[in-house]
Amino acid sequence: MSGPSGRVMPISGFPEYLPGDRIVEQRFLDVIRETFELHGFSSIETRSIEPVERLSAQGEDADKEIYAVSRLGGDDDDARWGLHFDLTVPFARYVVENAGRLVFPFRRYQIQKAWRGERPQEGRYREFTQADIDVVDADTLSPHFEAEMPLIVADVFSRFPLGDFVVQVNNRKIAEGFYLAIGLTDVVGTLRIVDKLDKVGPEKVAAMLREAGATDEQAAACLALAGIRSADLSFVDAVRALGVSHPTLDEGLAALVAVMETAMRYAPGRVVADLRIARGLDYYTGTVYETTLVGYESWGSMCSGGRYDALASDGRTTYPGVGVSIGVSRILGLLLGNRLVRASRSTPSAVLVAVTSEESRTRSVAVAGTLRSRGIACEVAPRADRFGKQIRYAERRGIPYVWFPGADEMTGGDEVKDIRSGDQVPASAESWECPPEDLYPTVDRVG
Amino acid sequence: MSGPSGRVMPISGFPEYLPGDRIVEQRFLDVIRETFELHGFSSIETRSIEPVERLSAQGEDADKEIYAVSRLGGDDDDARWGLHFDLTVPFARYVVENAGRLVFPFRRYQIQKAWRGERPQEGRYREFTQADIDVVDADTLSPHFEAEMPLIVADVFSRFPLGDFVVQVNNRKIAEGFYLAIGLTDVVGTLRIVDKLDKVGPEKVAAMLREAGATDEQAAACLALAGIRSADLSFVDAVRALGVSHPTLDEGLAALVAVMETAMRYAPGRVVADLRIARGLDYYTGTVYETTLVGYESWGSMCSGGRYDALASDGRTTYPGVGVSIGVSRILGLLLGNRLVRASRSTPSAVLVAVTSEESRTRSVAVAGTLRSRGIACEVAPRADRFGKQIRYAERRGIPYVWFPGADEMTGGDEVKDIRSGDQVPASAESWECPPEDLYPTVDRVG
Repeated sequence: MSGPSGRVMPISGFPEYLPGDRIVEQRFLDVIRETFELHGFSSIETRSIEPVERLSAQGEDADKEIYAVSRLGGDDDDARWGLHFDLTVPFARYVVENAGRLVFPFRRYQIQKAWRGERPQEGRYREFTQADIDVVDADTLSPHFEAEMPLIVADVFSRFPLGDFVVQVNNRKIAEGFYLAIGLTDVVGTLRIVDKLDKVGPEKVAAMLREAGATDEQAAACLALAGIRSADLSFVDAVRALGVSHPTLDEGLAALVAVMETAMRYAPGRVVADLRIARGLDYYTGTVYETTLVGYESWGSMCSGGRYDALASDGRTTYPGVGVSIGVSRILGLLLGNRLVRASRSTPSAVLVAVTSEESRTRSVAVAGTLRSRGIACEVAPRADRFGKQIRYAERRGIPYVWFPGADEMTGGDEVKDIRSGDQVPASAESWECPPEDLYPTVDRVG
Repeated sequence: MSGPSGRVMPISGFPEYLPGDRIVEQRFLDVIRETFELHGFSSIETRSIEPVERLSAQGEDADKEIYAVSRLGGDDDDARWGLHFDLTVPFARYVVENAGRLVFPFRRYQIQKAWRGERPQEGRYREFTQADIDVVDADTLSPHFEAEMPLIVADVFSRFPLGDFVVQVNNRKIAEGFYLAIGLTDVVGTLRIVDKLDKVGPEKVAAMLREAGATDEQAAACLALAGIRSADLSFVDAVRALGVSHPTLDEGLAALVAVMETAMRYAPGRVVADLRIARGLDYYTGTVYETTLVGYESWGSMCSGGRYDALASDGRTTYPGVGVSIGVSRILGLLLGNRLVRASRSTPSAVLVAVTSEESRTRSVAVAGTLRSRGIACEVAPRADRFGKQIRYAERRGIPYVWFPGADEMTGGDEVKDIRSGDQVPASAESWECPPEDLYPTVDRVG
């Protein structure tokens, strides 16, 4: 198709990968999907667009970051649509729309692209892939689902070709009760400020709290609470030592103890109670989650979420839920941008079937068909070049084996060469076993 | 998240599936991906947007069907973007943009959504999924790739849980040479009219040809050519019998013979030469393909494509290619809309682990963890209801097994029940073998 030539260029914030890096992305997506399914989550996909008024009801600065969509023809009705900027808003709408046809509690996963017109920077894109799980129920949601989330996150992240990671958990009620007890009644406003701790540091946060009306003592107490962190249940004593009590605080502590007890048992060493975690979004009402890679904490959270009392409502029924969202594009952008992982080859092909002459191409096609019927990905050499050139074609793609039909001059049998070692041995397409480590491209940490 | 309640509604042309139907979609997508990879195609994804001028350069009525995208904030520069309406235009741009970093011939597959603002109707959507493969080379492309495409299409379609299908092939040069030989010089215009044969019938096509300036004889000759169809090489004699000769016609016949010879050998009974196939797009220059489901021909082509001399060009190098595109949404919309296929269950879970009491939930969580570590998807019952209710929860989702921790009162051992047969047997999470046919949801033809 001859389109306009010239003017081909990347668009800032809309990343695209070369085939080798795409294999890395696929591997991460496969691991995520497989793990979500092992935990009994059903897949859904929602359409890419929602009514703009539904998207913009999410407040804050969301509005100006929404991508509006309209027919170029323009003879559309006046409906205004926008591309979704997360998977939670469309999921909430999907739950209400299909409530009568879903079985609750509904465990769903959703891996899709989303779009947000923010300023592109390292780890932040305008088109990006999220992988979400949520459990949503009608009217009430059992608290054990809040304890389940960190186990699933730990299961996914421990299957990635990454180093160590930490799932940080907190409960919004701890801060809420604590703030109320010390006389700070603007809970959400205070949480929003404390949430900036990682970005601006404790002194700036204290200043911001004072600016919002807190006394020096109140600001210091907020920072003391946010400084508590433990991989066991000792966070409870640390909070008690601050000498503050409130029923909501007690409720939050008990809930976080339950989450940590489960985590210590089923994901030991992976989960810490970190009372700094606030998640600036006002709809979280219970446990909140963040996940960081050890040694790369400055990259921020790779998987975040929490519990909300009202994911959605249709007026009659309210749907509480709990969920987390893995920032797939953020993880990959950072790993690939810093060359920390790579794929062993840029094609699925494990074998290149050489072609001796164009007249005998059908013999090579037959070999390829037999290998494929046995689950071995392969391709036939594009040209009957001299073998050295065909081997180089395989080499440039990282294809480990080259197959030579009829190479054995005595028997007329085939031979296969491992082009890394140079070993060439007799082989039959009906019986040759591709070493399992070569069957698919591998994705490995670099260095 | 409490968004606006009220006003949740489907958007015409933007289909969404319930979890069971989504499992059907995933199975089709998995089969496509697996088969493409067995044939050595590398995956890429391109961004969802392209410059509008690139999209609208494709002519015809494309313009008014493009969805334009702009920041709601509006402080963007004047760049105008649109959602891609196919995967060929973005792939052509990707090839030129990355030519220096790709190895040619480049075999790529791409499975993504596309958007087209046309009138929604059965099998046609405004948001839809396409699965494309193309082989693209620099400067020249060997003709054997044109013979390879039908084999791959046949391989994919024979793995679907569908009935019989036919891959129809033709070569544009046959019509081109034939039309020129009988004195019709507007080859593309004539092809466009003949392409409507299925929709409007031979009499209407003849009338349209005459309207475009053809004589009765010329129109009749066009229809005679379009009526030729054979599952073997007899189409050559049938064309010769029309008494027309032209070098381009000979070239086209020889090329189609080569494609059919390969097909007869490696996909016997799956491919027919059908000289009616025109593909109304002016960029095809050689072999063209369509694929129909036997008994559902009126649904139209489910997989189409062809050879183009200039997929892309950067001024210095031209990139010829050949490819096909599977209309995933069309296939699924028709199959699911007519309830011809269904998934055996609406969740990946093969097992529901029952909970005897909330106090003993951890025991159930431990069983689930062990089953998952052995690759068995499962979930823990949401509530410690009476067992009858827990079994009904499994039943409503189609989960075949319910696991009862400590059910054996003598030994304290676990038991597992096949809730379809009612059989309940002692079992250990470390060693129980889930029957392979129950491990994953199956996708089957109905009736």
